[in-house]
Amino acid sequence: MRITEIRELSVPLQGNIANALVNFSEHTVSLVAVYTDVWRGGRPLVGLAFNSIGRYAQGGLLRERFIPRLLAAEAGALLDEGGSAFDPARALRLMLRNEKPGGHGDRAAAVAALELALWDLNAKLRDEPACVTIARHFGRAPAADMEVYAAGGYYYPRDSTGRLADELRGLREQGYVAFKIKIGGAPLAQDVERVEAALEVARGGRHLAVDANGRFDLDTALAYAERLQPYGLRWYEEAGDPLDYALQRRLIEGYGGCVATGENLFSCADVRNLLHFGGMRPGVDVFQMDAGLSYGLTEYAQMLALMEAAGFDRRQAHPHGGHLINLHIGAGLGLGGCEAYPGVFQPFGGYPPGCMLGNGRVRPTSAPGFGLEEKPELAPVLRQLLD
Amino acid sequence: MRITEIRELSVPLQGNIANALVNFSEHTVSLVAVYTDVWRGGRPLVGLAFNSIGRYAQGGLLRERFIPRLLAAEAGALLDEGGSAFDPARALRLMLRNEKPGGHGDRAAAVAALELALWDLNAKLRDEPACVTIARHFGRAPAADMEVYAAGGYYYPRDSTGRLADELRGLREQGYVAFKIKIGGAPLAQDVERVEAALEVARGGRHLAVDANGRFDLDTALAYAERLQPYGLRWYEEAGDPLDYALQRRLIEGYGGCVATGENLFSCADVRNLLHFGGMRPGVDVFQMDAGLSYGLTEYAQMLALMEAAGFDRRQAHPHGGHLINLHIGAGLGLGGCEAYPGVFQPFGGYPPGCMLGNGRVRPTSAPGFGLEEKPELAPVLRQLLD
Repeated sequence: MRITEIRELSVPLQGNIANALVNFSEHTVSLVAVYTDVWRGGRPLVGLAFNSIGRYAQGGLLRERFIPRLLAAEAGALLDEGGSAFDPARALRLMLRNEKPGGHGDRAAAVAALELALWDLNAKLRDEPACVTIARHFGRAPAADMEVYAAGGYYYPRDSTGRLADELRGLREQGYVAFKIKIGGAPLAQDVERVEAALEVARGGRHLAVDANGRFDLDTALAYAERLQPYGLRWYEEAGDPLDYALQRRLIEGYGGCVATGENLFSCADVRNLLHFGGMRPGVDVFQMDAGLSYGLTEYAQMLALMEAAGFDRRQAHPHGGHLINLHIGAGLGLGGCEAYPGVFQPFGGYPPGCMLGNGRVRPTSAPGFGLEEKPELAPVLRQLLD
Repeated sequence: MRITEIRELSVPLQGNIANALVNFSEHTVSLVAVYTDVWRGGRPLVGLAFNSIGRYAQGGLLRERFIPRLLAAEAGALLDEGGSAFDPARALRLMLRNEKPGGHGDRAAAVAALELALWDLNAKLRDEPACVTIARHFGRAPAADMEVYAAGGYYYPRDSTGRLADELRGLREQGYVAFKIKIGGAPLAQDVERVEAALEVARGGRHLAVDANGRFDLDTALAYAERLQPYGLRWYEEAGDPLDYALQRRLIEGYGGCVATGENLFSCADVRNLLHFGGMRPGVDVFQMDAGLSYGLTEYAQMLALMEAAGFDRRQAHPHGGHLINLHIGAGLGLGGCEAYPGVFQPFGGYPPGCMLGNGRVRPTSAPGFGLEEKPELAPVLRQLLD
């Protein structure tokens, strides 16, 4: 069994939205297809994945460094001991050959797309959902379904607060119970109005999280903390720069409530620093690292191991990136929950109709692999990549 | 005045050498040329730079994200207030538009090549060496020359220790007084033999540094520290993972001697963490951040400002990357010294003959800009890029 070809396609994200810091209208995602010499139903078995959402496609790095290294692997070098499945950890080591330590940025996303495609392949080789393959690999039982919250609450050019409440009502009608909205793109007083408008829909602070997308300095983060504290929010996400562990620790001391961070940490080395220096509390705070931006599932599972060794519970992990790959990872690894961005970040964001349970829960279908083939919005780009 | 065209070329590094962790034979560097509508001597003025050495070329990221953003800049958006020079800080902000925080890896090197080419352009606009332009910009006087040490001491397949001493003798004959050799690629006892062999050439520990290239865990780092401590070495470089600030702090406590790190930190956010958590000591330890891997000189100068605000002296900065660009940066900013890799990392490594003073010192020539046009080894690739 071997890889015969690897294709990649840069896909623009649809939707003209902005958070406190970034306009997503130029963002792209790398969709990859790993072809094998295994034939099923008259065609080669293909592993599919993408490098999560919210940063950029990595066509250049994939073509320059990581696809050539995988394709140059000696026979068997990418397989597990029995030879009947790919070994993502071996593939990861091989892709990172002659890569220096540090600098965990774009390359972590490029590598992740390829590593995750091998998990999709392994699940398809056994004709089972990826969450089952993932759970078995790590000696666990997969969860039947996952808690999911709807992320949105972006800023609109006009009547932003009124449209925010309408947006959340629409999400509630779609079956979501918990929500996350943006803060930091308006003055504090206006953001407090947004939170109060959202709480009229969300039925209690524990169903509403807020996300500053790393915009605040310490003083601003603490000023928001003081105003937000009485609402008992689900969490207060990425107040400051994602690498500013000293700020994170002082924010936690000043705020008291639950905080969340980690979506912009892409390696175990960075997560170890968050655990050492960031003041995060076992049983309280939320970790949002995303395998698709972080060298894939092998590195992500090592991040969970670091968390657990430091006394944290893996249910404190709620990965960034509301999409099918992270649904299977969450169910396979027993994480705390999933994100969804209903209607935005298409064609990658969200879940096919078969996954939706209502009441704030979502479940993988029985489709083999990550089930990307079941997502209607992905069909055109998959045709473009595979035909 | 405006940019009319930007070219980039991926250039393979020559020389088949390895440190404790990485084989450099596959490494590449992005050489960039920024063309303007300013004409000098019958041809357009061109800014030249590259993304330092030791990691990878960034052709993909340059073509996908950063060159298009610079070329799309509105008239005047890249110029300083007077309109007579480019403004690298404005260009940097523009290149990082819609880039999320965190993830300071490959993109930092891609952006750096372009940002540094604007410094080369600004110096050529005034027909002066870049160190003069840089010093003036930051309100300083440029240094006439710089201390330089010869980095080498790689592992050879046979008679590694004997060949090491021969190599250092050859470097001494070239005029170098201080040296750096690799450790961590052999067992501790053999590395101690290497250090003793090198000390027979180096005339005292203060002329010999050792570099582990981030290979060691804490126990190994401390075991080396105990054996190295009596030699009073110039510095003990990158013992552990470059992001492992807890290790760095414990190493410093256990070793006592001078340590060096930072060549794999590519942003102010990372440097701030090293300053907060890494145990580095004002007046003692060495910082090796490299502008060419770190978004360029604008970000690098901010790193120096962070160091100085924390009580460190800029003479504690000895940038990674032994090449002309860092010679001009070092002389322009008043840093502690330069590196050289005589004979390796060509065509980018080292200095043209006009720069060599002997006695362990090197100086910029009067060539305009970084003077890359004076380096004989670069001539063929410059022709390839510019013709």
